[in-house]
This record gives sequence, C-alpha cells and structure tokens, in this order.
Amino acid sequence: MAEFLELLPPQNAIEKLMSYLDEVALKNETIKTEDGLQRVIAKDIIANEEIPAFTRSTVDGFAVNSRDTYGASEAIPAFFEIIGEIKMGKSADYHLKKGQVCLIHTGGMLPAGADAVIMVENTQYSNLTEIEIYKAVSSGENVVMKGEDIKEGDLVFSKGTTLRPVEIGALMALGITEVPVYQIPHVGIVSTGDELVQPNENPKLGEVRDINTYTLSSIVKEMGGIPKNYPIVRDNEEKLFLALKKAHQENDLVIATAGSSASVRDFTAKAIRKLGEPGVLVHGINVRPGKPTILAFADKKPIVGLPGNPVSAFVIAHMVLKSLLPKLRGELSSRTKMIKGLVTINMSSMAGREDWFPIRFTGDYQNGIPLVEPIFYKSNLIFTLISANGLARIEPNRTGLDELSEVEILLI
Amino acid sequence: MAEFLELLPPQNAIEKLMSYLDEVALKNETIKTEDGLQRVIAKDIIANEEIPAFTRSTVDGFAVNSRDTYGASEAIPAFFEIIGEIKMGKSADYHLKKGQVCLIHTGGMLPAGADAVIMVENTQYSNLTEIEIYKAVSSGENVVMKGEDIKEGDLVFSKGTTLRPVEIGALMALGITEVPVYQIPHVGIVSTGDELVQPNENPKLGEVRDINTYTLSSIVKEMGGIPKNYPIVRDNEEKLFLALKKAHQENDLVIATAGSSASVRDFTAKAIRKLGEPGVLVHGINVRPGKPTILAFADKKPIVGLPGNPVSAFVIAHMVLKSLLPKLRGELSSRTKMIKGLVTINMSSMAGREDWFPIRFTGDYQNGIPLVEPIFYKSNLIFTLISANGLARIEPNRTGLDELSEVEILLI
Repeated sequence: MAEFLELLPPQNAIEKLMSYLDEVALKNETIKTEDGLQRVIAKDIIANEEIPAFTRSTVDGFAVNSRDTYGASEAIPAFFEIIGEIKMGKSADYHLKKGQVCLIHTGGMLPAGADAVIMVENTQYSNLTEIEIYKAVSSGENVVMKGEDIKEGDLVFSKGTTLRPVEIGALMALGITEVPVYQIPHVGIVSTGDELVQPNENPKLGEVRDINTYTLSSIVKEMGGIPKNYPIVRDNEEKLFLALKKAHQENDLVIATAGSSASVRDFTAKAIRKLGEPGVLVHGINVRPGKPTILAFADKKPIVGLPGNPVSAFVIAHMVLKSLLPKLRGELSSRTKMIKGLVTINMSSMAGREDWFPIRFTGDYQNGIPLVEPIFYKSNLIFTLISANGLARIEPNRTGLDELSEVEILLI
Repeated sequence: MAEFLELLPPQNAIEKLMSYLDEVALKNETIKTEDGLQRVIAKDIIANEEIPAFTRSTVDGFAVNSRDTYGASEAIPAFFEIIGEIKMGKSADYHLKKGQVCLIHTGGMLPAGADAVIMVENTQYSNLTEIEIYKAVSSGENVVMKGEDIKEGDLVFSKGTTLRPVEIGALMALGITEVPVYQIPHVGIVSTGDELVQPNENPKLGEVRDINTYTLSSIVKEMGGIPKNYPIVRDNEEKLFLALKKAHQENDLVIATAGSSASVRDFTAKAIRKLGEPGVLVHGINVRPGKPTILAFADKKPIVGLPGNPVSAFVIAHMVLKSLLPKLRGELSSRTKMIKGLVTINMSSMAGREDWFPIRFTGDYQNGIPLVEPIFYKSNLIFTLISANGLARIEPNRTGLDELSEVEILLI
C-alpha cells in the first residue's frame, strides 16, 4: 500500500520548486520611505549628493588649524584667540588665521582655515576670548570630511536590500523620501476537510475547528506576506479545484492544507495539476512530520500542498516558506532563523529521513551554545507547540543523536 | 569641564528606570484572535472545553479493540471483519464487537468498542470486507484520547503571553475567536536641533536632514510599538518643553533626541523635569556611544532623552527599548535579541565603560558560534551601520578583547 512513488529529501524538494521561481515576474510600487520597514528595494539606489555635505566636527571643542597646535602639551600649552562660535545649522562664515580658533559643537561645520577640532576637554579658557590648548591635534582629527561617507554616484543600496531602520535613516539622509519596492506577495490559504468547522462554530462529534487557516496566515504575516483566507473546502475534487483556481488567480502563492485521508491527498494533487504547467513537482518529502507534502508550480505561481495535521502543516510551512517567501518578496537571500543548539538527551531517528521535533531552551549554555530539550508529542495537535521555542532538525544521514549533539534549530 | 555628576553603568541606569514601570497602568482592548499576531494577552485564558473533544486516530488504518490483536504477527496474522468506514467529520456510529474493525482516517473519531488503531501499513485486505492484521497494537496506540491535550478549566495562556502563530491556532481550536490584549504602546518621537531640516528639504550649508525621527520610529515599529512623529523642535528650552509636554500627554512613552551642544543637553533635562515627578532619574550613562543619555519618569510615563548623533541614538534606543517596550506591551519578559559571537581581532576598550561597536558576520563559525568582525567608524553617521548585522558589547570590567573572545551581540 505504498502511497508515494518517490520521496524526495526536503532540501532537494525545495530546490526543485525554487528552480522555477526565477520565472515569477515581481511587481514594483513606490512608497514613502518612512513606511518602508521590512520592504525590499526594487531598483538600485544611487546617491545624488554627497554625505556629509560639508566637513563637520565629531566632538564639542574648537576648530583649529592642526599645524598651529604642533608641540602643545600640558607643560607647554599653546594659546589661541577665539574669534567666534559656529552656530548649529549655520554656514561657518569665518576664516581662521594663524593662532585663531572657533568654538564648535558636534556636527558643526568647520570654518575655512581649520582642518581639525581640539576637544573641549583638552582646553581651558584663559579669558573670555582666549584658550590654552594642552594637546596637539593632527590634520583631520575629530572631523568627518565632506563626502567621506557617501559620494555622488555611489551605489547606496542594491535592489533586493531589505529596509531596516538604518537603511530608512540612510535614505532620509540622502533626501530620498520615496522608494521603489517590490509589492508584498499575496498568499491564498485554502483549508480542506469534511471534518472542519469555523473557529466560531461548535463542532459536533467528529468535527474539529479549522486552525490551519489561522496558524498559516499568521506565519505568512510573520514572514512578510499578506495572507488571504478562503472558505473551508469540503473533500470534493471539483470543489477543491474551483477553490484553488480562485486562490491561484487572486494571489502570488497558494497554500492548501489537504484533508487527511489518502484519497483526499490524491485528488489534491489532481486538482493542483489542473491549474497549469508544469504542475506538481514534488509529491511526498522524506521528512517527519510532513511526508505527504505537495510542491507545485503552475502558470508562473508556486503552490504548496500541506498535510492537514496542524503540527505537520506548521513544520512544513516554516521549512518551505523560509525559502519561498523571501524570493517572492524580492529579497537577495533567504532570512533563515536557524541557530545551533545542543540536545540534552539521546534521541533516535530513522536513517534516510529528516526528522523535525519541537524543542524548548533550558536556559543553560555550553561553550556559548544553548541547551535544548525535545518536547515529545503524540497528538500532533497545535498545543504541542505552545511550550516550544523552536523546531530542531535531525539530518537524514543520522540515525540518532547522542546527548549534547549539535542540532540546527528553527526559531518559531 | 565635567559635564555629568554621575555616570551610571548602563544596566543600573536601565534598572533604575524599569523600577518605576510597575506604576504604569496598562490598558486592555478586545480584538479578533486572527488579528492577534505579536499582541500580548491581558487576561489569563481558561479552557471552557476539552481538546480533543473525542478520541481520535492519529494515523490512517483500522479502529480495533487492542485485545483482539494480541499475538498477531507476520507469521500468524489475525483476521477481522470490516463493518464500515468512519467518515471524516462524522460521529462514529458503530459499536465494534470481537473480531470487527472500522476503516478510519487520521483525525477520525474512534467508534465504541475500539481503543487503538492499527496502521494501514500493517494490514492487508483478504477480500472487500475482511483484513489480515500483521502486528499487535496496545491500548491507546495511534490514538489521542478525549481531553488528552487540554481539559476544561485548564489555564491555557497566562496574561503576558505574546501571541505567535501557534498560540493563535490554539485559541482557535478552543473556539476563542476574540481575545483580551494590552493596547499597543504609543511612542512619541521628538527630534531637536537648530541644524535639522526635513528629509524632503534641501539642507543649506551647516544643515542636515533629520533622520533620527525615522530611524527611531522604525525601531519602535520593529519592537511592537506605534510611533508618532512630532515636528522638529529648535534649540529653545520653552519650545522643547511645549513639544515634550504635548508628546507626553499623547503617548505612553516619549523619545527625544537632543541637540548636540552641551547647553542644549542641559535644557533638555530641564524641560523633561518640568513634565512631572519623579523627573530625571539618570543623566549620563557610562557607555560609548551614548554617554549623554537621559532616562526619566514623569506622571507615570517614561521619557528617554537620546543623544542627537544618529549612531548613538540608534545604539541607546536598542539598549533601552529592548527592556522598556516589552514592559509597556505587557510582555512577561524582555525579548532579547542578544546572541554570542567571537571577535576576529584584538580590540581595546576603556575599563569601567561599556563599549558598543557595530559588527558584521564573517559567515564562519567556531564551535557553532559565529565569527564577527568589528566595523570601525569615525563619522557616527548612519551609513556606518548599513553593513552591520549587529552591535557587540564589551563589558565595563574589560579593558579589551583578545582575538576570538566571546562577545554578546544585539542583532539589528
């Protein structure tokens, strides 16, 4: 009663789907830079001015010609005339002559004739218009030169850069208040099953509430997509096809959770095949949980068929979407949330199959690596994962893990 | 020319502010559970039903009375009559007698008389109504019992729990489609400085574009607050006081970035003091960058005065907000983004002062810990941080780091 002809290792399965993703035409839009957090730049950004626009002080002190300070020390201070104060936000309309300084604040513009700033801590007023300097400064000391950070024509950000707070700040510094970004991918979520009722309904005996729709849409949000939930589909091939077709037309990615019985899984694949070429690429992954996963690509859009079991759907959604969604968002690289951990007990695993299991952090570390304890589960209900901090992966070539073996952890 | 009377170590400074936070009265609201990602539960959630609501199969196979399978093996299979199929979503209206089984799917309801499920892989049809079983099952095998995950009256989530996709799924499983959560804290952002212009303006010589407002509001969004940007305030004590007063009235937290000159920093503290009791708690932190930081609490709301320098403001905002915002969000613990790293070169640091410096990952690991290389910077402009993955911390009691020393990294 073998259900699948070929079970692909997870990495190969995902690579197979990813190899089609370059066919997806990403769409752009222009948004306000201040709304750009986590958005992905769609065109290279070139600086149209230099930063800083003028040579600035990086400290509070006195603008000076460094040569005039040569030899100054605690024992033999050098004396200078204060000819004025550089006001913040104003052009420095002074020209220092030999033996002259200007009071300057952090960020203030250097006046002509100055090439350095002596910190206020290394000076002392002799009287209101004269200071002693206790330390020599070298040319360029405590200043940042005009154009030192960014020159006109510099590539500031390549397309594919994800905007963090610093990138938003940098764009603002250049006066770039609007930015071309990729549109956020829309992800249609279709749950199927004769046993499912809406969360606000009271299930009759044999029925359960649909939770995959909400768990998956939350994962999609977390990963930077816009989820769209579709009504529950009953276990009927034609109805499923029509629901998938609608979701496929209206979104950039469709995630379907299949009903549980083998026959339902079969017609899920059939329904997906009808959506377009090349159709089902992977039907079955050598992983636990999540074996009956379907990966497909139809009419230039990816489709993921997940097992109906909530824990399986959760694990596989993370595994697949962490590659798929960044690509659909236009990001240059997948943003992995994998870290290292050390398991606290011996564990067994089937050779040739990749195993994923929920873990929680014990709070202890060894050589800087967190210790993780597996959470054993039976029911495959979502409550298993409540106490989990992540999912640990046992590679396919291992038959188990000794105590304190290193595992990769996907944070959830 | 000592500017501060007392420089507190960063941890003490933050703890001093945090000790007042219990006085903040958090406000609740009720939202749809499906919109609850990253929100924080404001009341303990008690289960009003049990999960599962009925004993279910965890595999595809045949529901059976385990005693009837005793002794079954490949060599001596046991024969059973199939009396029907448990349809998904339907009550199991069968009562198994000795020697009888029901076809059942994953998630299907166990019929009366059954206490286990034999996996389909361990069976074979003899004819349409009869199967052979090759393996004995024990009571409870491949089933999850009624109420096994959650019992009525169980505490499902304590208040202060942050909703991840799994928690949203778990609430939906219980039919809890609305949930009481804490309101998202509003954070007013006030930038001051005579040198600042709006990002869409062309700065004249001596002027620079305001970027802190946008960097800080993005950090606030990332950390789960709602930022509100206020107009740039000029370096004038009365204007600053009025701007802070308005922001203080309209928000749960105020972040002000002060102008650069020492006199401006002085009147920032004065203006904050006028907002209410107890006023300024910390004026100066023994950290680089970020020494002239002000931490205050007035009229049951915290106020943070940051240095105007973009890198300093960025570093201190992360350091302070990672404790402060979770608390204002009602979260039980701060969500630290600190990980361990090993520095690739020797570094010096001043004893007694905590140093923070930008780092990037080299991509290499040693014993599972990522190698990080410091990014040296001079200008303190935001562009320094563009190539950074995080900020590394050198503890105050260290005078430097040897190559491959361990540092704590705050991911940005």
